[in-house]
Amino acid sequence: MSDNHTYQPIGVIHTQFTSLKDTPVQGVFAPESRGKVEIFEEFAAGVKDLDTFSHIILLYSFHQSSDYELVSQPMLQDEPHGIFAMRHFNRPNAIGLSVVKLEKINGNLIEISGVDILDKTPILDIKPFIPMFDNRSNASNGWVKPPHMDDIKQETVKRSKQN
Amino acid sequence: MSDNHTYQPIGVIHTQFTSLKDTPVQGVFAPESRGKVEIFEEFAAGVKDLDTFSHIILLYSFHQSSDYELVSQPMLQDEPHGIFAMRHFNRPNAIGLSVVKLEKINGNLIEISGVDILDKTPILDIKPFIPMFDNRSNASNGWVKPPHMDDIKQETVKRSKQN
Repeated sequence: MSDNHTYQPIGVIHTQFTSLKDTPVQGVFAPESRGKVEIFEEFAAGVKDLDTFSHIILLYSFHQSSDYELVSQPMLQDEPHGIFAMRHFNRPNAIGLSVVKLEKINGNLIEISGVDILDKTPILDIKPFIPMFDNRSNASNGWVKPPHMDDIKQETVKRSKQN
Repeated sequence: MSDNHTYQPIGVIHTQFTSLKDTPVQGVFAPESRGKVEIFEEFAAGVKDLDTFSHIILLYSFHQSSDYELVSQPMLQDEPHGIFAMRHFNRPNAIGLSVVKLEKINGNLIEISGVDILDKTPILDIKPFIPMFDNRSNASNGWVKPPHMDDIKQETVKRSKQN
């Protein structure tokens, strides 16, 4: 049960963001930020009908992550929290998740917007975002309170404009 | 960029579902279905403050998946679709994603409901579900039209009741 699990990327994500510190924190606050998911040819047939969806879920490797701490202070925050109560990229298994808007598919290139992902990020999986399955309109924000949310939004807008 | 990525499970998910064919298809339609995420002791400190959230995102290994097809007919459907336009467990990188309700945390045991996950599933990551980041109220359902959605719901309710 604690065997390792090994995955081979199905493609690579191209964006304008080349450094961690200039990458938007959350894509939902950077709707203008664009990118392309290049699916390797051997997997390209798998995108059939993906463009019937308006939004998609990307699972990818946080390829510039480094050592994690189990408990630490999130960015722009004073209180320490557990790593599984945060979205930080330095985590035990550095897998990233983003919901992005699908703009268009050209062959093996998926054009996306609302992007908070570093350039050259290896992509592991794509799933359709299905509102009935994935939205939780009644969910709470936990420790992520409005002032902290505003900080994340401002920081994201700043980063997405300077690129 | 196409290097392999290897992950070591942070824990294991315990549910009442021991066979693929009896496991609920989508947890949102099985709110009564319960389970426990056991976090291995070495990672247990990382759940600090996770219980401030009502919902969490689980990323896990579809450990009973087998060979995938890039294009195939989804369950309960006549039309073929690409694997990246489906949520099926037989996929190039068999990583599963579920949004579940967090009921309670007892030490290294996270009690959850709305569960569509097989017993003994190795868990790779947990992230807080944050409505502002993760909900997309305007998203489309793509090829997943109401009759198919109803089929999934009925099948899920059937499976969650027979266990």
